[in-house]
Amino acid sequence: MRKPVFPPTPKYAPIPMVAGPVTLHPAVIGAIAKDYGSGQIEPDFLPLYKETAGKLAKLMYTDDDVVLMTGEGMLALWGTLKSCLKPGDAVLTVGTGVFGDGMADMAESMGCKVTKVSLPYDSTIGNGDSLETIEAAIRASRPVMITAVHCETPSGTLNPLGELGEMKKRLGVPLLCVDAVASLGGAYIDARAWNIDIVMAGSQKCLSAPPSMSIVSVSPTAWDIMKRVNYQGYDAILPFRTIYADGRCPYTPNWHGVAALNAAADAILEEGMEEVFTRHDVVARECREGLARLGVGIFPRPGAVSAPTVTAAMVPEGRTWPEWRQALRDRGLIVSGSFGPMAGKVFRLGHMGMQADSGLVRQALEAIEDALR
Amino acid sequence: MRKPVFPPTPKYAPIPMVAGPVTLHPAVIGAIAKDYGSGQIEPDFLPLYKETAGKLAKLMYTDDDVVLMTGEGMLALWGTLKSCLKPGDAVLTVGTGVFGDGMADMAESMGCKVTKVSLPYDSTIGNGDSLETIEAAIRASRPVMITAVHCETPSGTLNPLGELGEMKKRLGVPLLCVDAVASLGGAYIDARAWNIDIVMAGSQKCLSAPPSMSIVSVSPTAWDIMKRVNYQGYDAILPFRTIYADGRCPYTPNWHGVAALNAAADAILEEGMEEVFTRHDVVARECREGLARLGVGIFPRPGAVSAPTVTAAMVPEGRTWPEWRQALRDRGLIVSGSFGPMAGKVFRLGHMGMQADSGLVRQALEAIEDALR
Repeated sequence: MRKPVFPPTPKYAPIPMVAGPVTLHPAVIGAIAKDYGSGQIEPDFLPLYKETAGKLAKLMYTDDDVVLMTGEGMLALWGTLKSCLKPGDAVLTVGTGVFGDGMADMAESMGCKVTKVSLPYDSTIGNGDSLETIEAAIRASRPVMITAVHCETPSGTLNPLGELGEMKKRLGVPLLCVDAVASLGGAYIDARAWNIDIVMAGSQKCLSAPPSMSIVSVSPTAWDIMKRVNYQGYDAILPFRTIYADGRCPYTPNWHGVAALNAAADAILEEGMEEVFTRHDVVARECREGLARLGVGIFPRPGAVSAPTVTAAMVPEGRTWPEWRQALRDRGLIVSGSFGPMAGKVFRLGHMGMQADSGLVRQALEAIEDALR
Repeated sequence: MRKPVFPPTPKYAPIPMVAGPVTLHPAVIGAIAKDYGSGQIEPDFLPLYKETAGKLAKLMYTDDDVVLMTGEGMLALWGTLKSCLKPGDAVLTVGTGVFGDGMADMAESMGCKVTKVSLPYDSTIGNGDSLETIEAAIRASRPVMITAVHCETPSGTLNPLGELGEMKKRLGVPLLCVDAVASLGGAYIDARAWNIDIVMAGSQKCLSAPPSMSIVSVSPTAWDIMKRVNYQGYDAILPFRTIYADGRCPYTPNWHGVAALNAAADAILEEGMEEVFTRHDVVARECREGLARLGVGIFPRPGAVSAPTVTAAMVPEGRTWPEWRQALRDRGLIVSGSFGPMAGKVFRLGHMGMQADSGLVRQALEAIEDALR
């Protein structure tokens, strides 16, 4: 058995490019390699929580409250659905990939009346007549909530959300909830301008922290709906509403997780949000252009928006996915596969957070070039 | 703002004795101060998960499967109730404190038919006619599940569970679920001998790890019931049943959290389980005897079983809790208050995990003696 080693050991591979969990930021490792007091007792905890929530709100361009929960990003998704919806409530899920359509299954398991707008997995919102389809579905189903995914990691796409947000407002839909797990901190997401009521995010993607924290922004309308629904469970968001007033958390808070998010947000804010988003855009373009030079196709169709945080590429013809994965691993490059209909056909390079690095992408492209020979 | 410091900084206080999160084990800090790969991709993760689950099963004296979930201990409690119970199901909650009775509220919020046996908060199961009361309640309500708490931290008590387990078997109750959040790894808990179907535990108490992981053991009967209920949510335990067969986790696993639990379990197994339990017993007795010498009363009634992991003592007469807390803090001692009916009257010394240390208790007693002057 490997013994724990201190200080940190390097990643498994010289070229870690999985689509999350990504390489930790050194400041994040510094923040978790500590012995904190009790978050319920020490007067330092709540200010740290509030400060961290405020920094994450900045990354979302929102003035809404931000809640930090202990659990992987799926906690943000389940918590949002269960906190806002009752059985029988109408929900409209907009899917351009595995996660977008997955929200329909989740809401269905809760007994909601789900209308599922499932668009091609290589497309993004705005392609073809997708907006007309969505508008017709909203008019027909009158949903309490629209769900959408910002970055569909399995597809390597980024959905434009401005028009969907405008539509939500124009048609009077109470809630627009957006999965930004794989975009928050790596791509521009404007909750205020795009009328997003709940941004759902996690720690292990662009924030370069371990997969133990979930983040949700909550609009005043969303709080009102949560108060009416009054859902109870581990994933209930409502109990966090009064955390500053009474200092009470629904469970022992994870000081390490909050400190990790704080360090992660600091790193982004110190570099500058626009600079960080530009870095992701540049690296993603370098990745796509490099793949094109090597004759490796990308998954998103022409006209779809490729994600700045992850590139979904086609497994080369004549190779099975396990062969290709091993060929890359033999050259020190660790990539992700994909899910659902893309499984076995698509591989993914995660260039988010710490991995949004031109040098890393260059190394990855060299490994791919060599593996193609 | 404090900048993250590397290596770890010391605890806030020279005498940290809160009832959790406790001081981290150095090997746990070593395990989390690392950059791991993706648990879904690296072949090392699943063996580590399995090895860790096996070690935690040893600490529970069970051959049942053990599941490691990402979230604070409340996740184990909610996950157990929601995974096993449907609205209308009969549940019997045995409470000798805030957490035991809290299970009744949780099950009620789910629409279960709850029978609540609420015993005095300074007593433990077996005191007075409690066993007769419980048996009568089981016969009258025919529950699917009995819940009980092993260590009631707010009361500083440890419930004997052998007779309850015998009764569960004799009366044919399908499930006995025990909250061992504050005892696992610090007190003897024998899931096999006591017929416990689900042991629910967390990381931040006797295991001396951060509050980010939940642990549940699952008996074959519990798996069968979970399959029938087929609950879906972040806290669903069932999806972990096939983790070794298909390698699939319901969400990105928290490698840091699993590694922390592995290091924590190693530390206990290397010291020896009996040695660790004895250390807790000895330290707890030293704490109680020391308090008695100083004229500080303890909360549990004569005849109740005091917990080996935490001592609940009475705030001295003539002092308010905030005054007393501050007097102790002025002397470097950080303790916990209590909850519910004990709030303001009881303070608690957490001597579990790393804090089950005679030297630490001696220092605490000196601080208390000084504060009493």
